[in-house]
Amino acid sequence: MSRHPSKPAAEALTLTPIAITRSCFRDKFGVPRQPGLTRHARADLVIQPPFDREDAFRGLETASHLWLTFQFHEAVRAEWRPVVRPPRLGGNRKMGVFASRSPFRPNSLGLSVVRNEGLARIDGRLVLRIRDHDLIEGTPVLDIKPYLPFADSVPEATLGWADSPPTERLEVVFLPEAEQQIRQLAPERYPELRPLIEDVVAYDPRPSFRRGREEDRIYGAHLYDLNVRFRFVSDHSPKRVEVLTVC
Amino acid sequence: MSRHPSKPAAEALTLTPIAITRSCFRDKFGVPRQPGLTRHARADLVIQPPFDREDAFRGLETASHLWLTFQFHEAVRAEWRPVVRPPRLGGNRKMGVFASRSPFRPNSLGLSVVRNEGLARIDGRLVLRIRDHDLIEGTPVLDIKPYLPFADSVPEATLGWADSPPTERLEVVFLPEAEQQIRQLAPERYPELRPLIEDVVAYDPRPSFRRGREEDRIYGAHLYDLNVRFRFVSDHSPKRVEVLTVC
Repeated sequence: MSRHPSKPAAEALTLTPIAITRSCFRDKFGVPRQPGLTRHARADLVIQPPFDREDAFRGLETASHLWLTFQFHEAVRAEWRPVVRPPRLGGNRKMGVFASRSPFRPNSLGLSVVRNEGLARIDGRLVLRIRDHDLIEGTPVLDIKPYLPFADSVPEATLGWADSPPTERLEVVFLPEAEQQIRQLAPERYPELRPLIEDVVAYDPRPSFRRGREEDRIYGAHLYDLNVRFRFVSDHSPKRVEVLTVC
Repeated sequence: MSRHPSKPAAEALTLTPIAITRSCFRDKFGVPRQPGLTRHARADLVIQPPFDREDAFRGLETASHLWLTFQFHEAVRAEWRPVVRPPRLGGNRKMGVFASRSPFRPNSLGLSVVRNEGLARIDGRLVLRIRDHDLIEGTPVLDIKPYLPFADSVPEATLGWADSPPTERLEVVFLPEAEQQIRQLAPERYPELRPLIEDVVAYDPRPSFRRGREEDRIYGAHLYDLNVRFRFVSDHSPKRVEVLTVC
């Protein structure tokens, strides 16, 4: 695959983060491939000065959903690649980067619709709470806009290579040790933890080239400050994933 | 209304334009307040080097609609205002800038869904043709993504202050001189010009404080390289706008 230097074409623009994300997803592995694939993912957007004023968000409480424009800060590269291999195509087919939603793209801009859970003050800081998101810890948010249903919702739109959500969900089994560990965790601190774990592992977060393979490997995903360990059971039908420990 | 310096909060990011817009809308006046309000607005996105490679767009032909993230380049200000007065609320109510889609916002980022009309080579340059848009001539496009129907279309989303598209359309009358001038223009160069003009004037592009007032003033909007002159007829029911000349 060819690489090309990301040198500025026309005049460059400078942006500044509006908010920094405190996310249930601590690193890339396990983050849903699109927002909305789990209804149990929470995040707090910590509004940065000088934007941390309630009046800049006046009326936002009437919006059920928000657009976040953000930087894929863990995918910033000095060079860009014209083609990518989307995981939903099994990693085999090459697509143009602008025909994809890949995080590895010029300008590293991400776009997600999320559910609005409202403003809060936490330790004196202004925070916008969201859910149904796919943002990693530390993600810089560059814009927050209300979702405009009549303009933004285009149910008749089509996309040949990804017309429907990923449907294959693995069967998830929590082993007794994991069940017990989850029961001992405070739900205020880890809200909806069990269904969140279930969604994260059910969509098989492994890279494309590993999926479907038999393996005994144990995987770990970081949710909040927890390490969730799980493994894929190859000799079971339907395909199954076992959650081993949550601690 | 208070103003605040737009000094960088956290680490700043630098972006570079992917494309520059050649639009049927030559300046702000007359641009629809959301994309999709006219089905007759065309634009060519001239892809900038080093991004002007066909392979970076491979597969985009399967997308009916695209997301464009762009800079509101005519709304960039040294200072930002926490509250705005959306035109659809008659310019009377103040909303937080992040509860609005106002172009006057920190980072000056715009977001529009547009219809994909495909790639073309024009005078040797790679161009992405779009329609149903609301971009002004010269708009720098910072990202191009396919619209993902299952993730991006949220028909159940609600927004208290703007739940439905603007419905009031004025009655549009083309005076004989305008009709004749339109007939003499080459349709290849000015595609769907008459319905475009009709949509632009029917939604009353005047600023909120002028709408509904009686006035003899003649307005001009620049579409392509044409000046469209029109006036609002106050003593007619239903409300009417007359297109005087198109040249």
